[in-house]
Amino acid sequence: MYSPQPIDLAWMTYLGIFSMQHRGQEAAGICVSDGERFHVEKDLGLVTQVFDERRLDSLRLANARVSIGHVRYSTTGSNLRFNAQPLTTRTNKGILGLVHNGNFVNAREVRDTMLMEGALFATTNDSEVMLNLIARESHMDLVQATAAAMQQLKGGYACVLMSRTQLIGFRDPNGVRPLVIGQRDGENGNVGAYVLASEPCALFAVGARLLRDVLPGELVWIDRDGLHSLMVHPGTPTPCAFEWIYFARVDSVIDGVDSHAARLRMGAQLAREQPVEADIVVPVPDSGMVAAIGYARESGIPFDYGLYKNPYAGRTFIAPTQEARELKVKMKLSPTAAVAGKRVILVDDSIVRGTTSRQIVNLLREAGATEVHFRVCSPPIKHPCYYGIDTAARKELVASTHSIEEIRELIGADTLSFISEQGLRDAVDGPGLCLACFNGEYPAGTPMVNDLDKLALEV
Amino acid sequence: MYSPQPIDLAWMTYLGIFSMQHRGQEAAGICVSDGERFHVEKDLGLVTQVFDERRLDSLRLANARVSIGHVRYSTTGSNLRFNAQPLTTRTNKGILGLVHNGNFVNAREVRDTMLMEGALFATTNDSEVMLNLIARESHMDLVQATAAAMQQLKGGYACVLMSRTQLIGFRDPNGVRPLVIGQRDGENGNVGAYVLASEPCALFAVGARLLRDVLPGELVWIDRDGLHSLMVHPGTPTPCAFEWIYFARVDSVIDGVDSHAARLRMGAQLAREQPVEADIVVPVPDSGMVAAIGYARESGIPFDYGLYKNPYAGRTFIAPTQEARELKVKMKLSPTAAVAGKRVILVDDSIVRGTTSRQIVNLLREAGATEVHFRVCSPPIKHPCYYGIDTAARKELVASTHSIEEIRELIGADTLSFISEQGLRDAVDGPGLCLACFNGEYPAGTPMVNDLDKLALEV
Amino acid sequence: MYSPQPIDLAWMTYLGIFSMQHRGQEAAGICVSDGERFHVEKDLGLVTQVFDERRLDSLRLANARVSIGHVRYSTTGSNLRFNAQPLTTRTNKGILGLVHNGNFVNAREVRDTMLMEGALFATTNDSEVMLNLIARESHMDLVQATAAAMQQLKGGYACVLMSRTQLIGFRDPNGVRPLVIGQRDGENGNVGAYVLASEPCALFAVGARLLRDVLPGELVWIDRDGLHSLMVHPGTPTPCAFEWIYFARVDSVIDGVDSHAARLRMGAQLAREQPVEADIVVPVPDSGMVAAIGYARESGIPFDYGLYKNPYAGRTFIAPTQEARELKVKMKLSPTAAVAGKRVILVDDSIVRGTTSRQIVNLLREAGATEVHFRVCSPPIKHPCYYGIDTAARKELVASTHSIEEIRELIGADTLSFISEQGLRDAVDGPGLCLACFNGEYPAGTPMVNDLDKLALEV
Amino acid sequence: MYSPQPIDLAWMTYLGIFSMQHRGQEAAGICVSDGERFHVEKDLGLVTQVFDERRLDSLRLANARVSIGHVRYSTTGSNLRFNAQPLTTRTNKGILGLVHNGNFVNAREVRDTMLMEGALFATTNDSEVMLNLIARESHMDLVQATAAAMQQLKGGYACVLMSRTQLIGFRDPNGVRPLVIGQRDGENGNVGAYVLASEPCALFAVGARLLRDVLPGELVWIDRDGLHSLMVHPGTPTPCAFEWIYFARVDSVIDGVDSHAARLRMGAQLAREQPVEADIVVPVPDSGMVAAIGYARESGIPFDYGLYKNPYAGRTFIAPTQEARELKVKMKLSPTAAVAGKRVILVDDSIVRGTTSRQIVNLLREAGATEVHFRVCSPPIKHPCYYGIDTAARKELVASTHSIEEIRELIGADTLSFISEQGLRDAVDGPGLCLACFNGEYPAGTPMVNDLDKLALEV
Repeated sequence: MYSPQPIDLAWMTYLGIFSMQHRGQEAAGICVSDGERFHVEKDLGLVTQVFDERRLDSLRLANARVSIGHVRYSTTGSNLRFNAQPLTTRTNKGILGLVHNGNFVNAREVRDTMLMEGALFATTNDSEVMLNLIARESHMDLVQATAAAMQQLKGGYACVLMSRTQLIGFRDPNGVRPLVIGQRDGENGNVGAYVLASEPCALFAVGARLLRDVLPGELVWIDRDGLHSLMVHPGTPTPCAFEWIYFARVDSVIDGVDSHAARLRMGAQLAREQPVEADIVVPVPDSGMVAAIGYARESGIPFDYGLYKNPYAGRTFIAPTQEARELKVKMKLSPTAAVAGKRVILVDDSIVRGTTSRQIVNLLREAGATEVHFRVCSPPIKHPCYYGIDTAARKELVASTHSIEEIRELIGADTLSFISEQGLRDAVDGPGLCLACFNGEYPAGTPMVNDLDKLALEV
Repeated sequence: MYSPQPIDLAWMTYLGIFSMQHRGQEAAGICVSDGERFHVEKDLGLVTQVFDERRLDSLRLANARVSIGHVRYSTTGSNLRFNAQPLTTRTNKGILGLVHNGNFVNAREVRDTMLMEGALFATTNDSEVMLNLIARESHMDLVQATAAAMQQLKGGYACVLMSRTQLIGFRDPNGVRPLVIGQRDGENGNVGAYVLASEPCALFAVGARLLRDVLPGELVWIDRDGLHSLMVHPGTPTPCAFEWIYFARVDSVIDGVDSHAARLRMGAQLAREQPVEADIVVPVPDSGMVAAIGYARESGIPFDYGLYKNPYAGRTFIAPTQEARELKVKMKLSPTAAVAGKRVILVDDSIVRGTTSRQIVNLLREAGATEVHFRVCSPPIKHPCYYGIDTAARKELVASTHSIEEIRELIGADTLSFISEQGLRDAVDGPGLCLACFNGEYPAGTPMVNDLDKLALEV
Repeated sequence: MYSPQPIDLAWMTYLGIFSMQHRGQEAAGICVSDGERFHVEKDLGLVTQVFDERRLDSLRLANARVSIGHVRYSTTGSNLRFNAQPLTTRTNKGILGLVHNGNFVNAREVRDTMLMEGALFATTNDSEVMLNLIARESHMDLVQATAAAMQQLKGGYACVLMSRTQLIGFRDPNGVRPLVIGQRDGENGNVGAYVLASEPCALFAVGARLLRDVLPGELVWIDRDGLHSLMVHPGTPTPCAFEWIYFARVDSVIDGVDSHAARLRMGAQLAREQPVEADIVVPVPDSGMVAAIGYARESGIPFDYGLYKNPYAGRTFIAPTQEARELKVKMKLSPTAAVAGKRVILVDDSIVRGTTSRQIVNLLREAGATEVHFRVCSPPIKHPCYYGIDTAARKELVASTHSIEEIRELIGADTLSFISEQGLRDAVDGPGLCLACFNGEYPAGTPMVNDLDKLALEV
Repeated sequence: MYSPQPIDLAWMTYLGIFSMQHRGQEAAGICVSDGERFHVEKDLGLVTQVFDERRLDSLRLANARVSIGHVRYSTTGSNLRFNAQPLTTRTNKGILGLVHNGNFVNAREVRDTMLMEGALFATTNDSEVMLNLIARESHMDLVQATAAAMQQLKGGYACVLMSRTQLIGFRDPNGVRPLVIGQRDGENGNVGAYVLASEPCALFAVGARLLRDVLPGELVWIDRDGLHSLMVHPGTPTPCAFEWIYFARVDSVIDGVDSHAARLRMGAQLAREQPVEADIVVPVPDSGMVAAIGYARESGIPFDYGLYKNPYAGRTFIAPTQEARELKVKMKLSPTAAVAGKRVILVDDSIVRGTTSRQIVNLLREAGATEVHFRVCSPPIKHPCYYGIDTAARKELVASTHSIEEIRELIGADTLSFISEQGLRDAVDGPGLCLACFNGEYPAGTPMVNDLDKLALEV
């Protein structure tokens, strides 16, 4: 955030990252500057675990002007404490803080070159590569140097950078990862604070309204003179389809497309593409909820709450043995009486490994479902994501090695269908889409080293 | 749990209380005995906060035979650490551990009498009164003494007591609070372990099947000879209506009534009693979910997911100022695009103070809802609960001082209706019900001191 | 403490128990009352670990009047959290808090009788037996009931009891364990606060001066009318010799005997009883320090600092293997260059198991000491202590199974001598002494069950 | 440490830094490599607070070969977590870990130059400057590059650097800060592990014997071929006098001078230079202990233990008000009965601000000392230290603004004398000495910016 007037930026940034907790649960951090001091607090854990009153207070600088915050979702760089963001460093452009979402596919090559030139890398975080590139342009000002750095890094990313007096946001040329601009109403005739965030919910959390999306390839900066824009690298917009399928909150509008409406349309599309006779439509909560409503409406088959989700199950649950790990799904999802004796259409957002899907089908059958028809709001995932969706966890993609019929058999469903690529495009009904994980066409490049694990620095 | 064969009772009990986390978030505890040792671990916090691997391991006695567990929901007795359950104590019947759910309405009088006789009370927990009553009957065996103690304490309660060799469960004469019996399949021809729990989900969590409910006024005990029963004090069954309205999990069957089906019927009943023209039916998640589906089906008005619930919002969120406390609702619930330009029927389980309801209505209006029709699955709450539902939190009951029309105005809804008492009875469609909080008729007695706060011991 | 005027009793009590940290490192606790409320905070750990600012603040009642504090040194009752003191309970005399030092030798018989009468025992702490005895006298006032309870419990103990309005201290008839009375200067013509403590250092820590010792068998109480005394059970004074040998701080005066002077005399006595030709006198720090000075002065052999003690070594040091446990002594004590090529007289307070002594002698030899003459300020310890010195840790008393010559050989010293019983009496030069651990004559009775472990309650 | 054979380097390094806890209490860290992986654990706190079993285990690589450890004592760079050492980073010479003791006086100029060249500085730690200098020499191997970096940094320092396969130690040209080399006996005919440490006690802690000191200006490295040496920058040896006065353990031998013997000589020297008639010689424990023995022997006046030091007082003690901060000295030091009615010679290592000295004199007088003669083992401290002794804490040096007579009056002593510079040189009786804090002659240069605070980076 950038506020021309002193407001409680620590608290506001806390609200903002809290509202985006769904985007990353591994670590959280906030950096605040009052034009002189730079204070950062970050640690492993959820926002509410990292920040207690005392720690938040330590960030409450009297004349706070600029701040950034982050919740970490591990992709490259393991979950060590020193990888928590914001990353802060002193450069020839003063102290800088950077947060980023997504991945640079050529980070390793760039880093290796800079290593040979004498650079140090303390973390295994992509952000450090970006900061080194910025610092290297010692003759340019911060905005110019950032634009120059953008030209050298490829991939799908959205970043927010702060100095003592500026807030800078930029998005990759394809706009794979989202970034929105918001503004609070100013008080007493003053200009209100500007906010940059991955999703609009963070804007609303701090009382700001959505101005617009940062455009693919655009760099925006905010200083005492207001909001400025520079189109650094115009490209074809191909935002990540998974934002609407699963990642973004259901109350978010990204690149002009409303997430709730898109999911309703996905469900309806599925119902048209893959109809089946059944008694009830049941969502896998919470991600399949809205698509299931869409399916139910289009098909005329009643929607029902057939799977209870234990709201406490996301927490660190002790599960010592293999059997116990199976139990984890059972502790999280539990069939209600709705499914007994019913032919069930089960709607989920995606199938990755298939193991959870198999357990859910099994739970429904044990609870008396006579048929289970599995409907998926995304096409089969066959390829890794290089732009920031956790492919480490999605490594053993069942659809890359099995046919749909084989998957159906594996998970024990009576029928199994996925939405078509075109159906998904129609349902999102917005800009072009990155569908690389479905079709292998990577709009923003691929890493030279294909094995993502090798990207990690071992320190 | 009681297991004739050595099984991992610590782990099983952990699973059981984890599955009942929704019944209490203040403290958690487990006690295990192997026939010789008695080991208890308990603390303030959620199950996953209280128990890490190390602490659970300390409970893993090699030949564990008997165990009890508890999650605490504060009613009488403040949330100090020493009030966490199980309560353990040495008596003339050996070491005993006790967990209870509910309240004894005459605990204070009984305690005062025993104080005069020289008894000590270290906690402000009702359980300690029960244990003193049991210990006083030094000439009786444990089962007899427990039955004698039941005769002297009034109120709505369900308790589980363990000695080194017995597991004892009992329920008040009206069966206000639930208690079910389950059993695991025995292996190798052995008798399987018995389980007592408030809700069937805890049975399923440990792989047991539901045998039956403990009857109102019944005492059951399990020892090496199996399950035994004693009808101590038969009474008219009047289980708490709130179990089906809100408290029990939607996948629970209590006293023969399925919670999911009952909530569907509540929604349908509301639709019949209080129809209104509108565009969509929206639940207040998660408690209004199933009733909203019932309302939608009965009325033919489409169900939609109009309010997003942030799954991280239940955690300890820092909210320093009054304004920030309002923000808490906003950080927890967020309208989706479904409600813009729509006439919304909003379905919730109950209205207590009305403040949250007001904020939700306001959120919907800000998101563009043109009308908001508030429908409530319970009658207006006008009276405190003396049987264990948190009346401390329900102290300023808006319905006890305001007419329905006044409440409607207060919360800003276009219309407001509650289900009728008879409609609720029909929807639950089971045994008699305790509806004391709605109509002031207390089936299990009231405390002499009406002010519940005075029940608390100040230590 | 009892203060007629409001002072910061929480803070004062914190200072008091901090100054007595050497008397117990297992747990710490403080209880404060303002005449209405009773607030207690206690936990396992050192005073500075248990009490942070927030926790101390929670004890800062505005009109605090009475307080007690405790540091726990485990004797009977294992080191579980629920055994931390002060123990608080509601009785027919109101809420009471109790701290005690020492042991009741007939606690088990008394407890068993009360169990049969219907009493509960939540802890395995002797204090709870005392509180039950007090509560049982429901017709007496608190002072009378406490005096009656004193008559029934035997052993070596000093206790401080608080109600909302009184502070009561009492000491066993033999005065085995110490208890002193102090008073702060009153401000503005008011009476100053009274303090009861095990050692005078706690009085000085809170700015009080020493008034006198509580007499053996005396009960004193302080209320708004000042200090009162009742001689409940006069006996022959036989305070524990170990207070002067080791336990009490070197700046303490107990029962009229100055600890520093007594230790100087012990050293001198040893030099007279057990002279030996040598080059330097070296203390085992810190407990042998003053006696070594006494030995050096009497013998004319130079004192030197031959063993460095690592001040951080008392902390929880990880020592996984047997070899590593040996390392613990090495990490704690390290010979200086003073001992190389010297004949060393090593002065220590006592020999318990002999294992540490052996390692110290070995360290000195490795550092080049040509002879090591071990001199001990106490006679050989042959019998367990039933009055509160940790006999659990002193279980395998080497002197109970080995002759002095055998011990000498075991520890590898050139010569080994202990002070004589009469020499010790002369050195302390005060009242009669309890020398039970040396000669087996127990002035305050022995437990019926000799095995102290059996005193513990297994909960 | 470097071990050609696999040994438990994590545990050994833990022992080593534990034995040097007296050199820094702010933070602790260990880094271990097995030739492939590099694992570091570090945090704020004492060694025993930072390392629990689990954390130490995480460092236990099966084939550990190289390790470094550190305890932090804050000089430049505030006590933030990211300043904890070892600092690890990836460079063109592979991953490196560095620990250092002391200060580089031209770190700021060097850093500013490198900033302009595009370098990043994540910490405010001198080590990062050294690592950048090493990385910049991309054409040299690690040993050459380190030697080149040594040539560019001035000040008083001792560093240990590790790569996956090498352990490198180096010391500034004046040898201001100490560094010793040790070696363990090899087992089964193998070469034993090499150890580099600030003091010999760390060698003994891991079972190694002292080989020799690293020479001033020397760089040594250890790899699979053994120990190698390179004299990078020979200079006049002027080790820091404070190592013998106060900093080093009394059992350490540094640059050939035994600390215990040196302190005895300082005390004797003081007695010769500054005799006074008195009854006893009392040390300020623990640092004045051995010098007081020396003074007593030389003067013939009896040594006595006149001040008790509470061994728990170093811990985090809550001291909210000014009055309470005075109490801190009182809680730490307490006069024994030895001083009553006596003329006392008090021996301390140094006087910095004079406030503690004043309180100690006052304590002695209150305890009845009739005269207090203050004798100090170092000359008056008038100048800041730029080579790593905490001048932040020594900022308000009383001797830089007051005459000795004024200080005497300030602290309330009857007489006050300091050892002479020549007396100190004679007592240490070894190499030349850095006496800059006494006489302002800085052998290893001074910073361009005199205000050390300005050296700190504000992140």
